[in-house]
Amino acid sequence: MAYHPLNETSVVAYIKKLPAMAEIFSDFDHMSVDEVGDGNLNLVFIVRNDGRPQESVVLKQALPYLRVAGDSWPLTRERMRYETLALRKYNELAPGLAPMVFAYDEEMSLVVMEHLRDHEIMRRGLVARKHYPHFVDHISTFLVNSLFFTSDLYLTGPEKKLLQAQFVNEQLRKLQEDFVYTNPYMESPENHWNPLIDDAVQGVRSDAQLKMAIVEMKQAYMTHGEALIHADLHTGSIMINAGDTRVIDPEFAFFGPMAYDVGAVLQNLVLNFLSHYGHTADRGERERYQAYVLDLITGIWNEFARKFDATWVANHRGELAPPAYWQFPGGGDAFTAFRQQYIHHLLQETAGHGGVKFLRRMMGIVNVWDITSIGEMEKRAVAERLAIRIGRRWLLERHAISGIGDLVGIVREETAGVMV
Amino acid sequence: MAYHPLNETSVVAYIKKLPAMAEIFSDFDHMSVDEVGDGNLNLVFIVRNDGRPQESVVLKQALPYLRVAGDSWPLTRERMRYETLALRKYNELAPGLAPMVFAYDEEMSLVVMEHLRDHEIMRRGLVARKHYPHFVDHISTFLVNSLFFTSDLYLTGPEKKLLQAQFVNEQLRKLQEDFVYTNPYMESPENHWNPLIDDAVQGVRSDAQLKMAIVEMKQAYMTHGEALIHADLHTGSIMINAGDTRVIDPEFAFFGPMAYDVGAVLQNLVLNFLSHYGHTADRGERERYQAYVLDLITGIWNEFARKFDATWVANHRGELAPPAYWQFPGGGDAFTAFRQQYIHHLLQETAGHGGVKFLRRMMGIVNVWDITSIGEMEKRAVAERLAIRIGRRWLLERHAISGIGDLVGIVREETAGVMV
Repeated sequence: MAYHPLNETSVVAYIKKLPAMAEIFSDFDHMSVDEVGDGNLNLVFIVRNDGRPQESVVLKQALPYLRVAGDSWPLTRERMRYETLALRKYNELAPGLAPMVFAYDEEMSLVVMEHLRDHEIMRRGLVARKHYPHFVDHISTFLVNSLFFTSDLYLTGPEKKLLQAQFVNEQLRKLQEDFVYTNPYMESPENHWNPLIDDAVQGVRSDAQLKMAIVEMKQAYMTHGEALIHADLHTGSIMINAGDTRVIDPEFAFFGPMAYDVGAVLQNLVLNFLSHYGHTADRGERERYQAYVLDLITGIWNEFARKFDATWVANHRGELAPPAYWQFPGGGDAFTAFRQQYIHHLLQETAGHGGVKFLRRMMGIVNVWDITSIGEMEKRAVAERLAIRIGRRWLLERHAISGIGDLVGIVREETAGVMV
Repeated sequence: MAYHPLNETSVVAYIKKLPAMAEIFSDFDHMSVDEVGDGNLNLVFIVRNDGRPQESVVLKQALPYLRVAGDSWPLTRERMRYETLALRKYNELAPGLAPMVFAYDEEMSLVVMEHLRDHEIMRRGLVARKHYPHFVDHISTFLVNSLFFTSDLYLTGPEKKLLQAQFVNEQLRKLQEDFVYTNPYMESPENHWNPLIDDAVQGVRSDAQLKMAIVEMKQAYMTHGEALIHADLHTGSIMINAGDTRVIDPEFAFFGPMAYDVGAVLQNLVLNFLSHYGHTADRGERERYQAYVLDLITGIWNEFARKFDATWVANHRGELAPPAYWQFPGGGDAFTAFRQQYIHHLLQETAGHGGVKFLRRMMGIVNVWDITSIGEMEKRAVAERLAIRIGRRWLLERHAISGIGDLVGIVREETAGVMV
């Protein structure tokens, strides 16, 4: 079928004809459809059997342009292929932590996948001060499994290059390169920001030291093909409830620096922490939830580091430094030291990429709902100025970071005494 | 034509049928053929018109296995495609500094190219103490043009990813990963070394600090896709005479760290410097030529750095940090500082990759002719021990390297007073 965007009518006809759907729907007599895409790039339909509410799927179809910018940022529809490839890899490496893929249609640039009926976008739950007792465990497992098992620490050299070759993804990579690492920090028509922090925004744009550091991180982002990264792993790409966590929307996936994904998770949690200056008026309640968010950050890093190391020891088949390489007197200790050094370096890079991402969210094309949903612009400005200060420090101080306590410490220092 | 290895008879028939050859040969009545492959992977035929000696071509055909190891290292024949792709890129970016490609046959895994009749392998000329007044200029231009113009400093994001996607080259990359960064430093049956330096070889293999540093460089080699690198740019991959320089054999080409190519050139010149302990008995003559080799090294780096920076300023169209990004008060100085920092980091990485390559040549699968052609094993051992000491220091001291003088200084310090 030649590509055409589906609508709420044609999507039902499409679903009915799809062989795989016979296993999901017991009949197609009372179907209903909602288009719920709040992203920028795609149509997202929820297709339900109204007779049996537990029968439903999500159909996601790529649009040939970037929604927020109209026709000015034309995109190829290939990205749905990248999303599907990545989701299938996640289904394999981190089962239960991403939606299941049921069908993929290359020509129509669409994927049909599990409907996460009982989940909400994590951003919204965090603003509502919800607790997620399994999130630390789930997201650290997702990060370790998706990153470690697609890296040179697990794959052979040729296996890794052939997998990497499937994720060229040159169009969406350019979007992130431009919109995370370049355009926010210079004059570019799509940028927008709170006018109350204009001085801070202009300060970033004319800070030579900061801008050199941003380019250093951009170079790593553009050239360091370490593992299959999600490349957009903010809390809007996580569907969650009290017991379950699913990573969605990996259309930006490519082989990049592992720390980019880790940094995205931690940095978005800090933005949520900051957003409670606007969302949670009661000081005690606010401080309790902010402490919880910091505990999540500490827990995620510590569990990530612990599982990453344990997974490496238990699955040491990659060719970066194979077991035989460490077979010399003291070699076991050297391998341990190398792993520690590797993971420590990951934390420093996490600070760097996470730091840049604080900045882009305050002054680029896509801001973040936790913050923009604060009604009072003055309170919003308090959170935004703090985000810029914290981002700047994560980035510029990254080489001195020795543990997650340093990153959390910067958040504590910058926010101490603000809006008490 | 289905793949079959050509021989000295069948190659003439093949050449006669090739349309492009009508422009090279005025007739095919008195053809002669020599197979001259001294490499490990390929057949190399020189095909001549004996009636007109200026009419000749080289036909290079991939073998499906690694020659030195018999059938034990099977290889795909794809590498001839990579060599041809890279040579054509060099023909475009650095015309006159690589052989011209006349024809390529995918099925037969062969390329027909310019015969460099008046050139010799540079290694041999250097052992014979020849001078090459244009080499500094030629090789620095080759390095700058092949690296800069295939990097994010010149190409747009998508242009670079699509070019990079042509050079997956997973088989030959694995060879270099294993044979440069891993196998020489552990027990592996293909390793060989001068028995007189066994203590030094075993010392490398059990030096925890050194082995961790080697893995750091291997990680950069495996993951840092900065530019199209030749990946085997030693002085055996350079054909030269007094006026002309050609880079050959880019079958290992892929998108890797720029410093690997720069390091290969500089490190092979140092190995030649060391080899004169065995080749040049007269002390005055030896020291004069060794001083000349050090001048080449200094000149190559300085010209590389100068041209790289000037080329960047003059061709600032890449998306890493575009001109508009630096448009703020002081932005011009920041751009200059960023370029200096980038090039300085390239020198440190040059020391790291070059350092590793010293070590692998002393104890791995492929040693280096400059050294192995020394008849007296004791003299050879002197050169080899120095190579290991210098390589170790280039690698371990790389973060402290501030200029090419530091790298040359290590060579001077380690060789001072030896064999005077």
